[in-house]
Amino acid sequence: MDCYPCLLRQGLQAARFAGADDVRQKVALDSVLDVLRQAESTATPPEIANRVHQIVRRETGDGDPYRSVKEQSTREALALYPRLKTLVAEADDPLDAAARLSIAGNIIDFGPVREYDLWATVERVLAQPFAIDDGEAFRKALGRVDQVLYLSDNAGETVFDRVLVEELDVPVVYAVKGGPILNDATLEDAQAAGLDRVARVVDNGANAVGTILSLCSESFRHMYEEARLVIAKGQANYETLSSEGPEVFFLLQTKCPIIARDVGAPVGGIVLKQGEGSE
Amino acid sequence: MDCYPCLLRQGLQAARFAGADDVRQKVALDSVLDVLRQAESTATPPEIANRVHQIVRRETGDGDPYRSVKEQSTREALALYPRLKTLVAEADDPLDAAARLSIAGNIIDFGPVREYDLWATVERVLAQPFAIDDGEAFRKALGRVDQVLYLSDNAGETVFDRVLVEELDVPVVYAVKGGPILNDATLEDAQAAGLDRVARVVDNGANAVGTILSLCSESFRHMYEEARLVIAKGQANYETLSSEGPEVFFLLQTKCPIIARDVGAPVGGIVLKQGEGSE
Repeated sequence: MDCYPCLLRQGLQAARFAGADDVRQKVALDSVLDVLRQAESTATPPEIANRVHQIVRRETGDGDPYRSVKEQSTREALALYPRLKTLVAEADDPLDAAARLSIAGNIIDFGPVREYDLWATVERVLAQPFAIDDGEAFRKALGRVDQVLYLSDNAGETVFDRVLVEELDVPVVYAVKGGPILNDATLEDAQAAGLDRVARVVDNGANAVGTILSLCSESFRHMYEEARLVIAKGQANYETLSSEGPEVFFLLQTKCPIIARDVGAPVGGIVLKQGEGSE
Repeated sequence: MDCYPCLLRQGLQAARFAGADDVRQKVALDSVLDVLRQAESTATPPEIANRVHQIVRRETGDGDPYRSVKEQSTREALALYPRLKTLVAEADDPLDAAARLSIAGNIIDFGPVREYDLWATVERVLAQPFAIDDGEAFRKALGRVDQVLYLSDNAGETVFDRVLVEELDVPVVYAVKGGPILNDATLEDAQAAGLDRVARVVDNGANAVGTILSLCSESFRHMYEEARLVIAKGQANYETLSSEGPEVFFLLQTKCPIIARDVGAPVGGIVLKQGEGSE
């Protein structure tokens, strides 16, 4: 229930990004209210978010309302890429720096967060202690595997992911969404960020926030089940995979009080957390 | 439309303040969604807020969900009262200091704002330049009248209003809401803050946020029409009276981007603004 106001706001925002005029915005908003009104109490926030964005895409006739903000996010992040590489190269602990930068990039978001200062976030996250730090387990896991499955989050954040991918000593499969949803990265966004040059980019077959395995393609599900180390970026992946076993490591910033409470970190915290539950 | 997410959040908050369990909260939330779904596009945010709080009062069976937070706000503010009086007594310009304190008290709110630090706000508002400053016109108006009609906003803020009332050289009629709505002050709240010792306290006959004249009692409307100087506190009074003529002076903090844009001040700005339109 705490997520409903935010989901309503997202629906309105998506309608505006789609260029809807006031009348169309109201039609979309009413449809979002219907979605919320009809949501079962067992539906998770990512599930409702998917319905919200689906209905806004339908009502506005724009299949990808976030396309231009995604492109802009990627451009802004690419402009920082050389500075990010320098930060990692000069760091005492390059893997730590690269993981932090990947988390810093998670601030790029048009879901729970409305405004952010990208470079200020980079500096903050490099200096800030982890709210949850399973970094030791992460390093051990990295030493044991010969491949990493990396679940992306937002366009633009992809560039920061690339910096981390380039620091990993093992091949990476970089998974994006199967279709446009919010400002989440798709194949096109990953390519624009240059991920295809450093990883095998695949799509998960679902145009849904987070990773809802039942919505993903069979080939992606197989890949996920075989994976011995999964890096999962962002709140929505945490919401949908947090009980899926210890081979998943979540890298994220806690951006809203609901997730922060569940993760056990303050809002604005930086988190590297190992998953729970059995494999 | 921008206000809908906030109104939804307020409805959920009110249900919780009423002590509703999860099931009742969902019933109340669904009713609020219905209110939003049915709102005409011409309805103002205060009008919709009134319906939202009305439906939550009905669904939860609690006629005054904010009673205990209002009492707590008044207690907290009364504890600061001696320090507020000292600040005014030691100020170079006591009227300016008292007006600022009245505006500082406007941070006490359970509508658009969720969290605040009262004393930090006092210090900030005393030091902060006005975003809009019609103080000169305000002083001139004060010199011309033999009575002031003071439209209150929230419980607790009342104590800060009292400090300003005590600095005015003319008798004050202090108007509160006719019944419980949000955390707005009622007769009981004004008395708890000691306003009845320094002003004639009246109620406006409406349990509605802001001052919607058509909902107020005839005696209050008469009083309003006769008034040559009105001090109106807070965003909701601004939303409902901003075009009601130059005899109204609004004292408020801009707490949300929508009002801030309309007022012409940044969010977090402090405002002493003369009303527009003809009398």
